Amino acid sequence: MERIKNYIETNRERFLGELFGLIRIPSVSASEASKPDMIRAAEYIRDLLSGNGADRAAVYPTEGNPIVYGEKLIDPSLPTILVYGHYDVMPAEPLDKWVSNPFEPEIRDGKIYARGADDDKGQLFMHLKAFEMMMATDTLPCNVKFMIEGEEEAGSTSIAGFCAQYREMLSSDVILISDTTMISSDTPSVTSGLRGLSYIQVEVEGPDRDLHSGIYGGAVVNPCNVLCDIISGLKDSDGRITIPGFYDEVAVPSDEERAKMAERPFDPEKYRKSVGVEALASEKGFSTLESTGIRPTLDVNGIWGGYTGEGAKTILPSKASAKISMRLVPFQKAEKIAELAISHIKSVAPAGVKIKAEYLHGGEAYVSPLDTPEYLAAERAYEEIFGKKPIPVRSGGSIPIIATFEKILGVKSILMGFGLESDAIHSPNENYPLENLFAGMRAIPLYYKYYTEMKAAQ
Amino acid sequence: MERIKNYIETNRERFLGELFGLIRIPSVSASEASKPDMIRAAEYIRDLLSGNGADRAAVYPTEGNPIVYGEKLIDPSLPTILVYGHYDVMPAEPLDKWVSNPFEPEIRDGKIYARGADDDKGQLFMHLKAFEMMMATDTLPCNVKFMIEGEEEAGSTSIAGFCAQYREMLSSDVILISDTTMISSDTPSVTSGLRGLSYIQVEVEGPDRDLHSGIYGGAVVNPCNVLCDIISGLKDSDGRITIPGFYDEVAVPSDEERAKMAERPFDPEKYRKSVGVEALASEKGFSTLESTGIRPTLDVNGIWGGYTGEGAKTILPSKASAKISMRLVPFQKAEKIAELAISHIKSVAPAGVKIKAEYLHGGEAYVSPLDTPEYLAAERAYEEIFGKKPIPVRSGGSIPIIATFEKILGVKSILMGFGLESDAIHSPNENYPLENLFAGMRAIPLYYKYYTEMKAAQ
Repeated sequence: MERIKNYIETNRERFLGELFGLIRIPSVSASEASKPDMIRAAEYIRDLLSGNGADRAAVYPTEGNPIVYGEKLIDPSLPTILVYGHYDVMPAEPLDKWVSNPFEPEIRDGKIYARGADDDKGQLFMHLKAFEMMMATDTLPCNVKFMIEGEEEAGSTSIAGFCAQYREMLSSDVILISDTTMISSDTPSVTSGLRGLSYIQVEVEGPDRDLHSGIYGGAVVNPCNVLCDIISGLKDSDGRITIPGFYDEVAVPSDEERAKMAERPFDPEKYRKSVGVEALASEKGFSTLESTGIRPTLDVNGIWGGYTGEGAKTILPSKASAKISMRLVPFQKAEKIAELAISHIKSVAPAGVKIKAEYLHGGEAYVSPLDTPEYLAAERAYEEIFGKKPIPVRSGGSIPIIATFEKILGVKSILMGFGLESDAIHSPNENYPLENLFAGMRAIPLYYKYYTEMKAAQ
Repeated sequence: MERIKNYIETNRERFLGELFGLIRIPSVSASEASKPDMIRAAEYIRDLLSGNGADRAAVYPTEGNPIVYGEKLIDPSLPTILVYGHYDVMPAEPLDKWVSNPFEPEIRDGKIYARGADDDKGQLFMHLKAFEMMMATDTLPCNVKFMIEGEEEAGSTSIAGFCAQYREMLSSDVILISDTTMISSDTPSVTSGLRGLSYIQVEVEGPDRDLHSGIYGGAVVNPCNVLCDIISGLKDSDGRITIPGFYDEVAVPSDEERAKMAERPFDPEKYRKSVGVEALASEKGFSTLESTGIRPTLDVNGIWGGYTGEGAKTILPSKASAKISMRLVPFQKAEKIAELAISHIKSVAPAGVKIKAEYLHGGEAYVSPLDTPEYLAAERAYEEIFGKKPIPVRSGGSIPIIATFEKILGVKSILMGFGLESDAIHSPNENYPLENLFAGMRAIPLYYKYYTEMKAAQ
């Protein structure tokens, strides 16, 4: 452990230089124009892996963005950890909200500011360097495999096929992922549950061209107004979603589970202030933490239609569109929820408009058991680094691929994240504290150690 | 009359060249970047006026876009016609829907295709050439003044001040405007009423940055969803506007008036097909023509918020905005309606969001009496050109400045428009049939003639 700490001290500047090199590649998976950058980022990671002693390090082309694989197998009788991460990032827009260039990392107040500084280039990088250090100090206690994809922010469309094709190569005992947050260094936590996601896009088409809103207004259905009616009708005044069948499969936690969840230290006032609103709002009958942890929800992620420039243009627009996503809980199925939503939207649309709707992507929710070596090894690693046992937390976010891993590879995932809520992932001025970056690098080798020991003791 | 016809034949190509020159100046008043083009367009019109013998032709700077003035006063005992028009145009977006460049006029199937081909460069140009022809043929029967502004599509903010400042210079007996449509060459019509307009912009602000929709979704109010709720609530299921006080001043036409209005030839099926929808929709209890002619309405002209690029970005947006306009009927007041709307929107917004709303522009509705020389001269001019007495029609559009003229200058306006509904003004592929352009040039000198005669006979 001391050797790992010293290794970090000695190599700190080189480590940051390598991470910054990765961040500078604008690998935005939502943009078709970023294709060459996706390949550059994948090759960059492949070179880090092979440079640090991984075998079979290679970039695997897919129909979408490539997947990087590498491994170090030291003994078939020892357990195997499969590390998953992603090198793609969210779009950086709105660019004018960034203090510094999103693709030119800058350290301010002990934090790296850049798109991907946390999600997931920063967190993924901790695993690459933990591997380098275990190799260099000859302390790698088990087998390790890496699978790093480039489509996580855009639906992970290729990785299910990759898992199915290379099932044997990917065989492992646990999948280790750092792509989540903890409460704070004072209150460490491990994400024990994630919501699922069902993301759709809806277009309402009215007249076949933009019309003069004076000449036609009042006689021709306005697609912007209709879209607002449709979206407004998707929730009732209690914040419950009105799509028929939406709640049919929702797991209802017991009163005991809800009571335990309420023990988590949480300050709603601090939370409210951290997002800059004057009031929070949850589904009726559920607390803030329950509303993001155990309840499904529906949000408009984007909406557009008609004239959005300066001044006043008097048109009755031809079209209006929205991106709408629903966060899911066990045991809702992402595709089924999308179908229910789309069919409901079509059924409530008035005569005079046409609806086009498509399912963009999604995945099922995830819950981790808390009494397995996979979870307990993480608990011990966090405790050693932060001095306190971490709290298991159900997060509101989604990593849809986790359910896919379990289905195709038959392996559970552990979400050993070191991000903070203040890291502003997916937002302008995303950042990652250096303290968390280096804490993660120290915790990961401990996980390998305790996991190997616990598995041996089983 | 024969001399006018011949003059058009002889000068047809030069006329078109002059009009095309005006259209090629992209004088979009909604865009700050167009300022130099506004000045170019104003100077272009000034030069046409002075070149054709107008006196005092000049460009008057304002705080916004300049106003062009010119006059020909032949005898103070004769009536004076004040011609009003506007050289500014609507934005041309969406550009990809245009068959040809919106600022490079092209003649196809006997129509000029370009932004402003009809509204209002084409219609305004008829007056400039009618003036040239009356001067050249020595048939100008009365005094004439021109007042051509550059902010009609953006609220006509400067012209009220201009009218107040130059009240004496602008003194006249009637204001003549060609900025409206007629039903067709087979069924000529004169616009005898226009709706008013009250245009507002609303911004809903929630969290102080875009948030991750998974981590926060369910606990933090989403401004896009809230904006949809607000807009959806502005109309009830009968299509009635729910803003308290909105209908308080609305003039309710008598059954007799409604019966007379229903006599106008109108084919709802043809109208429906012309806008490419499967069904029309009006306020409950009113026909299509009533809904655009005598009833106020509310339309979203544009809406935007959150992520609108390709793919799926999982954010809970910080802001959402909409442009919302209400068409008004006598005796609604534009500013009061905007105040009612804004105060209602603020009152229904939930805790957790802030509302910013502003009144962009507007104006009151207009109705013309049908038994005055001002109207009857137009009726006779149309009848001579089209072979049929024109039908008086209440149009749904707005020219807010007309009420201002009446208030400040004390003069009634006559809407002698030659456009067609198929001209697609404010839309891609705006066009103006050459037939209408030249019919207008012939009808305008007749109006001067009959108006002068009728006034003399009074």
